[in-house]
Amino acid sequence: MKEDVFYGKGMVHVKKDYPDIYEAVVKLNEAAFTGKALDYKTQKLIALAITASNSDDRAMKKQMMSAIREFGATKDEIVDVLRVVLLTAGNPPFVKAMKILYELEE
Amino acid sequence: MKEDVFYGKGMVHVKKDYPDIYEAVVKLNEAAFTGKALDYKTQKLIALAITASNSDDRAMKKQMMSAIREFGATKDEIVDVLRVVLLTAGNPPFVKAMKILYELEE
Amino acid sequence: MKEDVFYGKGMVHVKKDYPDIYEAVVKLNEAAFTGKALDYKTQKLIALAITASNSDDRAMKKQMMSAIREFGATKDEIVDVLRVVLLTAGNPPFVKAMKILYELEE
Amino acid sequence: MKEDVFYGKGMVHVKKDYPDIYEAVVKLNEAAFTGKALDYKTQKLIALAITASNSDDRAMKKQMMSAIREFGATKDEIVDVLRVVLLTAGNPPFVKAMKILYELEE
Amino acid sequence: MKEDVFYGKGMVHVKKDYPDIYEAVVKLNEAAFTGKALDYKTQKLIALAITASNSDDRAMKKQMMSAIREFGATKDEIVDVLRVVLLTAGNPPFVKAMKILYELEE
Amino acid sequence: MKEDVFYGKGMVHVKKDYPDIYEAVVKLNEAAFTGKALDYKTQKLIALAITASNSDDRAMKKQMMSAIREFGATKDEIVDVLRVVLLTAGNPPFVKAMKILYELEE
Repeated sequence: MKEDVFYGKGMVHVKKDYPDIYEAVVKLNEAAFTGKALDYKTQKLIALAITASNSDDRAMKKQMMSAIREFGATKDEIVDVLRVVLLTAGNPPFVKAMKILYELEE
Repeated sequence: MKEDVFYGKGMVHVKKDYPDIYEAVVKLNEAAFTGKALDYKTQKLIALAITASNSDDRAMKKQMMSAIREFGATKDEIVDVLRVVLLTAGNPPFVKAMKILYELEE
Repeated sequence: MKEDVFYGKGMVHVKKDYPDIYEAVVKLNEAAFTGKALDYKTQKLIALAITASNSDDRAMKKQMMSAIREFGATKDEIVDVLRVVLLTAGNPPFVKAMKILYELEE
Repeated sequence: MKEDVFYGKGMVHVKKDYPDIYEAVVKLNEAAFTGKALDYKTQKLIALAITASNSDDRAMKKQMMSAIREFGATKDEIVDVLRVVLLTAGNPPFVKAMKILYELEE
Repeated sequence: MKEDVFYGKGMVHVKKDYPDIYEAVVKLNEAAFTGKALDYKTQKLIALAITASNSDDRAMKKQMMSAIREFGATKDEIVDVLRVVLLTAGNPPFVKAMKILYELEE
Repeated sequence: MKEDVFYGKGMVHVKKDYPDIYEAVVKLNEAAFTGKALDYKTQKLIALAITASNSDDRAMKKQMMSAIREFGATKDEIVDVLRVVLLTAGNPPFVKAMKILYELEE
């Protein structure tokens, strides 16, 4: 189940052409999100925070959609993530992320 | 209470010499950490994630100490944050953050 | 007056849905651009330099348009900013910024 | 005159061992700081802004010292640069830069 | 020959309007790629690695096309570069780069 | 053999306390450096390029030492990597990396 959440279309090719990389990425995802103390949803919000702070449009959009659809993250929860992005990464990534969030909402 | 958590020694000077900046930073911190849906501790862990993903030694150390001392964050909770850093920001910031965490533990 | 310069369409939603964030951003902008020693236009050019050095397409385009339209920045002034981007951030962000500048000029 | 400002001790070795790189860096510095419209000091402050926004301790310290000693930049001018860093790159690089500035002042 | 490889359309304008910058960029490219010990193709793959690790879509696409068309880089060679990107810069830039590589292949 | 090259002291703790993360990192390293087309040393130089372009002092020093000691990388080979860093990431990370290289040489 986890697998179809994380790996976009690009990874279908990787799985077929470079199975050793694919297995490493699966293992890495499992190690990343099988936390001992934080729940899965919180960890996904952390992944969103990191990609948003890098101003990476596509990656943050993908993380937002995943957080909303797979983990039922609410708009207020995502905005609470982006509040921290504003403080620690500045206004440009915050504005970009809010724009993407409102576009997803529509 | 919040105030003495966030603002290091540098901010003492800012408060005295540049009160308009100080007030803006206070306001920004309040807006950042007065989330509607996520609790304060989770938001602090998100701030740690962002600074750790930037490989910023001092900032991540400060965030870790604050998370542990002010919010009672456990080692496993911080490692769960760093698992996501490993996935989304790569091995160098992860290794650096683990090193700092173990140094703090000693 | 300042307000309609900085805050794009995304901020209209923020103002309505998250007034505390909006107020913090306004305060932050005021503290940022109410410099004591540098004029407003110079500070805007500095904001352009930072967003350009991060290779952030949209943010740098927005800053360029704002610099040109609101502050009458000339092409040579913007290129002088980008010269420093070339030195301190490398050729890829410089080339990207020059491309955007020439597109805006047309 | 410019040359001894920009090139730290490391570049002495480069000049001797890799003269082609040295010449390229000199040329690059000349192209960067021989602006048509902005003066030299403003361009140096822009270089400071970019290195500060990257949270690069040593580089921003070097730029601050150069701005102060070679161009007579005042504390308020540097703080005006850092105001923009706070807005566009977030609180951690701002706090770090202010700390370095106050240490230089002492 | 080198010249038409590196400098995109934007640089045509730069050559005409800002010849001093153009000359500095040419000099910089020559110093960068006239390595003593590594061959030209390896250095181009290194340039690809750096732009890919920054998640810079356009710059990495341009570097990939250049590596493939001018230097005959194979898909496996580029994937070997991206393996290192996965390790040192994380999953998001890796996935983005693989997507671009497969799109170029089609 | 590979294992003692990549994993610093911090990883000793990780192996003991968080074996699932350790295994994922081992797997990731194997997938990263078991390239099909590029040799191991070239891939290590690429890892050096990425960490150097991020101005990450410790990570680039570690990569340089590993490249020199484990793979017999020469000074000229490392400088050829740093030439590309100068072009694609700017002068500050280049100067920092050259400084570290000359310190290692002594």
